[in-house]
Amino acid sequence: MRRAITLAARGLGSTSPNPVVGCVVLDATGESVGEGWHQRAGGPHAEVHALRAAGERARGGTALVTLEPCNHTGRTGPCAQALIDAGIARVVYAVGDPNPTATGGAQTLRAAGIPVEQGLLETEAAEVNAAWLTSVRLGRPHVTWKYAATLDGRIAAADGTSRWITSAEARADVHRLRAECDAVVVGSGTQRADDPHLAVRGIEGAVQPLRVVVDTNGTAVPPDARVLDDAAPTLIAVADDATPAYDTENTVRLPRAEGGLDIRTLLDVLHARGVRSVLLEGGPTLAGAFVAAGAVDRVVGYLAPVLLGAGPAALTGGGITTITEALRLDVSETVRIGPDLRITATLVAKEH
Amino acid sequence: MRRAITLAARGLGSTSPNPVVGCVVLDATGESVGEGWHQRAGGPHAEVHALRAAGERARGGTALVTLEPCNHTGRTGPCAQALIDAGIARVVYAVGDPNPTATGGAQTLRAAGIPVEQGLLETEAAEVNAAWLTSVRLGRPHVTWKYAATLDGRIAAADGTSRWITSAEARADVHRLRAECDAVVVGSGTQRADDPHLAVRGIEGAVQPLRVVVDTNGTAVPPDARVLDDAAPTLIAVADDATPAYDTENTVRLPRAEGGLDIRTLLDVLHARGVRSVLLEGGPTLAGAFVAAGAVDRVVGYLAPVLLGAGPAALTGGGITTITEALRLDVSETVRIGPDLRITATLVAKEH
Repeated sequence: MRRAITLAARGLGSTSPNPVVGCVVLDATGESVGEGWHQRAGGPHAEVHALRAAGERARGGTALVTLEPCNHTGRTGPCAQALIDAGIARVVYAVGDPNPTATGGAQTLRAAGIPVEQGLLETEAAEVNAAWLTSVRLGRPHVTWKYAATLDGRIAAADGTSRWITSAEARADVHRLRAECDAVVVGSGTQRADDPHLAVRGIEGAVQPLRVVVDTNGTAVPPDARVLDDAAPTLIAVADDATPAYDTENTVRLPRAEGGLDIRTLLDVLHARGVRSVLLEGGPTLAGAFVAAGAVDRVVGYLAPVLLGAGPAALTGGGITTITEALRLDVSETVRIGPDLRITATLVAKEH
Repeated sequence: MRRAITLAARGLGSTSPNPVVGCVVLDATGESVGEGWHQRAGGPHAEVHALRAAGERARGGTALVTLEPCNHTGRTGPCAQALIDAGIARVVYAVGDPNPTATGGAQTLRAAGIPVEQGLLETEAAEVNAAWLTSVRLGRPHVTWKYAATLDGRIAAADGTSRWITSAEARADVHRLRAECDAVVVGSGTQRADDPHLAVRGIEGAVQPLRVVVDTNGTAVPPDARVLDDAAPTLIAVADDATPAYDTENTVRLPRAEGGLDIRTLLDVLHARGVRSVLLEGGPTLAGAFVAAGAVDRVVGYLAPVLLGAGPAALTGGGITTITEALRLDVSETVRIGPDLRITATLVAKEH
């Protein structure tokens, strides 16, 4: 199953609106004879890839799958039936499918007389699918807020200079994060200050994320903005009443909220477009708006061992005024990235 | 030698103005027959403890010492001579003694015909003695700035509430830090806001540090301040021209500097009192004054996986206005302390 989870992770960033899934097929003697993972929406599911690789050796064997095999015919046939047809004698899966249209695979398999076990490495398998599971549960994309700051929480010096607080290694690592998400979001402040490109560079085979600029007043994106090139699709979100200077072909109009656009509506729009995971790379103001909207599920902080003592903070606003209201997370990982630290923290038991 | 370094660490906080030293004596067959560490200034050195434990079995054996054996007669006799008298046949030490009055031990041993090797686990042995080595090199105490903050660098919420950002485990860990230092320093802001006790609790046998309050105007320490109890010695630093309301028995008068007292002079005064290591537990303003004075050697940050979005930063002032002036450190350790992270970072190649 650990191998199946590793295989599943290969699909991160390219399977939405589907989950990532990995599958290993063992023959009757327990030897691994087929591997597969879901590579892209519309393409074969993990089980089908693994069964094809196994061929006749699947008969009488065991299928290990990270997610409950699907039961419905979408763009591909139901995997439960494919496992039955291949003569699989036992199915072990990690996480039950919470999607009402796809669930029921285990039941179908059992009805065909195949023993089914659930729960092996469930936590690890849920972790790799955290974005998709969140999106099913909450009906909106999973949001990861990424920031880069000094040990004392500054994202720039007092004079605004910030290139570079974190290392080249940390900046390269951000491209991996982007590649694993369906959309990358920045606000007008970051757009103006950095003219970011937001596409994935340096990762072979990566599916480019949708680049999203939250430009409430329609004034922050010049015609030669790097985000408007053809390296990746782009969406600009502006207020209902804004009159953007640029071509409005790639824009979406959203209601205003205090200090900007309504974040919940933005997430609804992205969800409707198939976006299941968002990487929020915005500055402190946009991050504060997401926090205020209860729409931060995971935080990835790149901390440089640097002290500044002055300059803007990583997060402003968010509506928290006293310590008991603080947003509390769990540290799930701490990794050295070059000279910097990458700290990943996850919101626990959050239900909106 | 690794064992000797572990032994040396037991002396942290109780040997100043001496270094911490550990020693292991092996007999002629290579078996460990005696261990010792320097426990307190004025008491026997590590070598003497280890030689006493080894007795006659030291003859023809090897002494492993974390620091070059001393050559001078202070409150105790020279260790080089003690090793010669015990019939030790070989001496291995990790770090050379930079102290001009004590150095020369290796030379004395060699003159007596004893082979001497230097450099085994030198980095690790220097690390355990970092405070003392810094104090010899710079002529002032080694300074560790400790802070506790959220992931976004806040030490309190917007309304000033901060109990507790970090966990009970992290707060207990601070007592270990205090026990390893000779003095604990806070400023008037922390004194007023927290009325801290600053003594070590919960660590058996710990030597209490000198509690130091930087109270420039002599107005922050009320007669019933917890820091004035008899749990540990206390020193209050006030300005030359201040007229403190409290008894001035435990006060020292220092020149004013921009925004407070002259930090360099404070450190000189502490050094003259035998303080070799300072734990700076002050708030953002005092920490900024230490940074501005070039007097932060090590940073220990307790980071809670919490977001606030508003509230005071961990460090203010410090005189850094642009990114190229940023104080750059090396992360030397990251440890999970309960739900929090403890990040230790060290200033590199710093010479004042």
